[in-house]
Amino acid sequence: MLAPGERLDDLHRDGLKIIQNPKFFCFGMDAVLLSDFAKVHRGQRHLDLCTGNGIIPILLSAKSKGASFAGIEIQEELADMANRSLVLNGIEDRVKIIRADIKTFGSETFDIVTANPPYMPVGHGAQSPTDALAIARHEIACTLDDVVAAAARLLVSKGRFYMVHRPARLAEIFATLATHGFAAKVLRFVQPNISRPPNLLLISSIKEGGANLVIQAPLVIYDEDGNYTKELRGIYYD
Amino acid sequence: MLAPGERLDDLHRDGLKIIQNPKFFCFGMDAVLLSDFAKVHRGQRHLDLCTGNGIIPILLSAKSKGASFAGIEIQEELADMANRSLVLNGIEDRVKIIRADIKTFGSETFDIVTANPPYMPVGHGAQSPTDALAIARHEIACTLDDVVAAAARLLVSKGRFYMVHRPARLAEIFATLATHGFAAKVLRFVQPNISRPPNLLLISSIKEGGANLVIQAPLVIYDEDGNYTKELRGIYYD
Repeated sequence: MLAPGERLDDLHRDGLKIIQNPKFFCFGMDAVLLSDFAKVHRGQRHLDLCTGNGIIPILLSAKSKGASFAGIEIQEELADMANRSLVLNGIEDRVKIIRADIKTFGSETFDIVTANPPYMPVGHGAQSPTDALAIARHEIACTLDDVVAAAARLLVSKGRFYMVHRPARLAEIFATLATHGFAAKVLRFVQPNISRPPNLLLISSIKEGGANLVIQAPLVIYDEDGNYTKELRGIYYD
Repeated sequence: MLAPGERLDDLHRDGLKIIQNPKFFCFGMDAVLLSDFAKVHRGQRHLDLCTGNGIIPILLSAKSKGASFAGIEIQEELADMANRSLVLNGIEDRVKIIRADIKTFGSETFDIVTANPPYMPVGHGAQSPTDALAIARHEIACTLDDVVAAAARLLVSKGRFYMVHRPARLAEIFATLATHGFAAKVLRFVQPNISRPPNLLLISSIKEGGANLVIQAPLVIYDEDGNYTKELRGIYYD
């Protein structure tokens, strides 16, 4: 089932594996953190935007009791790779991958939407050498506004939207959420260690929700000895 | 120089003392943290909004090389208390206390504006039993929007605005800063210890500045043994 250049990685959860290709897309810790931060409760319908190789719906399908899981991906090679991972794991009935553009896809049918979108505005930072990596990292195929607009269009009223993004864009994230009718509910920063600034943030918001933001204590990746913290080990292996 | 109910507290800095009255106003750690977070460079003109008993301009006058320091206070008893502290310390030439309403006072003449404003919207949380304490804690005499509007009116272009506030109001703070033409530049959360959520935030922004937000590692108050951290001891005593 592997195409040239692809590899099969173990997800250390329920025997799940995932197909990756360093030329196109490999998931990062941000996807793992988001799939832990996002909560899909029994019976809920979940959708992941910009799903890449499907890492987030695959992890959430194992970690939660949701009724259904799905991911949208615009790039054909990645959507194909994600679909083969579903078949390989025998979860193609429980998880669906949709090749579509989030700017035009669907309407209000999901309870939970997640997104690990491209972080970098076009023109900021080094562009990746291949198109697929550039599209995953830079806002070429979709901007922050596109992602939040899609979440607003796809969620039912009071549905939850979970996103991982960069701290430098926090002000813009709040403004964009408000523009599309979301109330930010929980914000958590992720720090490499206790003394370094955060390099990621996790944020949940509610469509047509009320204002009552809770900022949690930061999630710290490494302890003073350079090992994963107890919390991080729990996220990866519990 | 003390009125009934007042006491004289040592600021542990250059022999400075300050008059306080628990019935009207006693400064908190938030004022000390803000006076460390705010930077007044040589020759700059500083103004503190909602100055209470003048703690922030008094501390900044000792910690920095600014050209002038001032505080605005709407409550007569507090402005009077602050003025007596200036005379007591012999710094009445270097620091001015102005009894005025920030909603109408002044125009673009300051390089640095600080604010430790009332944190609580009217109607949220227990109202204090005396008017003076209620006005210091609740948005009775001025709202967040009033404070940010005053900072925008009083600062020169590219002037810096430093504020301490509550994390729960972060989204509103960003929106209000943007409304009044500020770009948020530095955000730092303050946590009681490394595992507890932040209960304060420090934010600096630039009038008519560009967008480039830096989120710093949190300031942690207590170490695992319940003692002040090294950084906090430095803020109080260095």
